[in-house]
Amino acid sequence: MEWISKSNVLIVGLGLMGGSYAKAFKRFGYHVMAIDKKKESIEFALENKIIDEGSTEVKKEFVGKADTVIFALYPEVFKKWIKDYQNFFKKDIFITDVTGVKSAVVYDIQDILRPDVEFIASHPMAGREVYGVQNSDDRIFLNANFIVTPTEKNTKKAIEWCSSLGRVLGCRKISILSPKEHDEMIGYVSQLTHVIAVSLMTCKDNRHLVDYTGDSFRDLTRIARINEKMWSELFLMNKDVLLKEMDEFIAEMGTMRDLLAKEDAEGMKEKMKISTKRRGWFDK
Amino acid sequence: MEWISKSNVLIVGLGLMGGSYAKAFKRFGYHVMAIDKKKESIEFALENKIIDEGSTEVKKEFVGKADTVIFALYPEVFKKWIKDYQNFFKKDIFITDVTGVKSAVVYDIQDILRPDVEFIASHPMAGREVYGVQNSDDRIFLNANFIVTPTEKNTKKAIEWCSSLGRVLGCRKISILSPKEHDEMIGYVSQLTHVIAVSLMTCKDNRHLVDYTGDSFRDLTRIARINEKMWSELFLMNKDVLLKEMDEFIAEMGTMRDLLAKEDAEGMKEKMKISTKRRGWFDK
Repeated sequence: MEWISKSNVLIVGLGLMGGSYAKAFKRFGYHVMAIDKKKESIEFALENKIIDEGSTEVKKEFVGKADTVIFALYPEVFKKWIKDYQNFFKKDIFITDVTGVKSAVVYDIQDILRPDVEFIASHPMAGREVYGVQNSDDRIFLNANFIVTPTEKNTKKAIEWCSSLGRVLGCRKISILSPKEHDEMIGYVSQLTHVIAVSLMTCKDNRHLVDYTGDSFRDLTRIARINEKMWSELFLMNKDVLLKEMDEFIAEMGTMRDLLAKEDAEGMKEKMKISTKRRGWFDK
Repeated sequence: MEWISKSNVLIVGLGLMGGSYAKAFKRFGYHVMAIDKKKESIEFALENKIIDEGSTEVKKEFVGKADTVIFALYPEVFKKWIKDYQNFFKKDIFITDVTGVKSAVVYDIQDILRPDVEFIASHPMAGREVYGVQNSDDRIFLNANFIVTPTEKNTKKAIEWCSSLGRVLGCRKISILSPKEHDEMIGYVSQLTHVIAVSLMTCKDNRHLVDYTGDSFRDLTRIARINEKMWSELFLMNKDVLLKEMDEFIAEMGTMRDLLAKEDAEGMKEKMKISTKRRGWFDK
């Protein structure tokens, strides 16, 4: 397999995700390199043998050694990096990313990228509510879905390579979706749920209720602890999809509200029966 | 303590909650009796030594032995039971319940109850998404809050007795709230969260997304598997509070929607910062 013959893996952006990728690659014996502007991240990763080589600057001789590059940057930073430094890449390599939205990223990157390097986008649906390489953990991938989102510009070889990357990480299931399909899926299962959790927290001052919450409230609001820089960017990049999902959900909450206002017990029960049936599909 | 000297505990309604109470009482050495119209529930509980005595009918000689009675019935059934059978009670006993809403139950019961029996309402904030004495488990109380909701009619002695009941169950924290305070709290932390989980399930056909959901979606929708008979009744009995909570939440979702539509990144970030800060209060 193409992937196995590659030896130098470069990770650009050594935070929680970048560090978790690094740990998975080290486990498989790859030579792992990383670039991050934070000196303490590189030092921590070197000291803890999470990476073999690191740099706080983007240098041609460093980038040029990589047989594979993984971008774990915020989307806008990622685009700028490609513009500024793509001439440093070795030729005929594959590069990929970890970005949580696809349509707003994939086509732009593929448009500006030099023709002898192939960008095949992917999204490991894994994360934690903490940040930084210090909290990185390659076990987050073990129960996760790994989504490869090729466009018409991608080769079969790159799609296969990227799928094998998901297997190296240890992901449970590897799927191929178009960027559009991916963004519609993520708008519902991830972005809408984050908006809901945030809105539940911000809709009222709830501090006096801290002593009375049970596990269901805590489970539902776990994701209300949120990285505002990353998620606001992800929301904006998937704006049209997310607005549609929010509108559908708000309308459904309104329907539930009206059923209760009318004291329509049968109508509420009918909704709850549908909910119970659908939720059954999602049990692991 | 008054509670310790009582010996015969009668549980009316031997489902998940009633059975879990029975197990906790047995652990402390009480003589546990139960009434349930389902023969198989009584038989199961006797065979598995969850109770010492059981009956599928309400008989004076059986009810009259009880030094304490716990009602684990649906609210409307509970009220009818008191009307029909309260003359069977031994005099000078305390009775309590497990009902998830209070204002719509407590005053009605206290109004109709004979003067030599005291009803002190309580709510163990514990449960599971499964039903029946077969699934009962007294460990559900170990991390739970136990709320005692006295009215002006209740005596200090009854409030203390009911608080000690929470300790017998093993609840983590025992609180005293007025029925109104209880219902406002439960409207937000429990009922609103259930409406949200249901609406997320019913707002669109999501079966094709089953393969792509992660833990956060599953956590958020765990309570979307819901007992429609019980919850629709609880919603209706707390209608005014729940409508207010739903309106506040729907308005906040609308605000988030407008921030996104306007591409107001700073406004979204501000909401997320508040959310993160508030969610921090709820960590155990």
